[in-house]
Amino acid sequence: MNIYFCGSIRGGRDLAVTYEKMIDMLGSYGKVLTEHLGSDEEIESNDRVLTDKEIHDRDLQWIVESDLLVADVTVPSLGVGYEIGRAIEMGKPILCLIKQDSEYTISAMIAGSDSVEMKYYKRVEEVKDLFEAFFSTHAPHRTS
Amino acid sequence: MNIYFCGSIRGGRDLAVTYEKMIDMLGSYGKVLTEHLGSDEEIESNDRVLTDKEIHDRDLQWIVESDLLVADVTVPSLGVGYEIGRAIEMGKPILCLIKQDSEYTISAMIAGSDSVEMKYYKRVEEVKDLFEAFFSTHAPHRTS
Repeated sequence: MNIYFCGSIRGGRDLAVTYEKMIDMLGSYGKVLTEHLGSDEEIESNDRVLTDKEIHDRDLQWIVESDLLVADVTVPSLGVGYEIGRAIEMGKPILCLIKQDSEYTISAMIAGSDSVEMKYYKRVEEVKDLFEAFFSTHAPHRTS
Repeated sequence: MNIYFCGSIRGGRDLAVTYEKMIDMLGSYGKVLTEHLGSDEEIESNDRVLTDKEIHDRDLQWIVESDLLVADVTVPSLGVGYEIGRAIEMGKPILCLIKQDSEYTISAMIAGSDSVEMKYYKRVEEVKDLFEAFFSTHAPHRTS
């Protein structure tokens, strides 16, 4: 199973360590196509040699190839919003995660969309149960 | 002609005054459905009584009814990214504006998308010529 994980890159890296932990957890369900997102060094070595168009086209193709999307939507990010918008068009199941008590306010365009499943977490460890519920609904016969 | 203007709300209001000036300029080309975006008071009185779902569904319907989109993508915003993603699905012409020398870095998912026209500005006054070029291409027989 292919999983597309979305997190903020140029919008801000406040939650990079959290992304890395989420990507680790997601690895037990399938292949995380965007696994470089948890590490600044990996992003740098992956994307440094690519133009913005090459990054865009690769990421969009990865969304096409994914069975579902998991997005941390805590930090405002144009790219994450864009990816969610495009994934809705493709009919992908989408789980949006928000860290509670952060300095940010979630957009009404995400919080108010019927096409995404939105869940709050306080500590990243809580996300494990949210993943379990999401994958048992949307990928019950998983083979990782 | 209906115009959908996108700017950051919950992502950050740094450019609210710029949005207001852009919306004023756009008024000479048609009806700006999101004209409340330039003013915190207007947003407050428009959206205060609505749920996130009501805001989302209203804004998405406005995109459907729009002939084209104009987005200021300087400030990272989930909502703006989402709206651009959904508008691409609908085949709308999209102009993305970026303030040069700002503290932010534009997402590769916007900068690298063939489905948007991206233009830089330093002072908001320069945007007038960018609008003129965009509307003369995409709405040459405008009636405002």
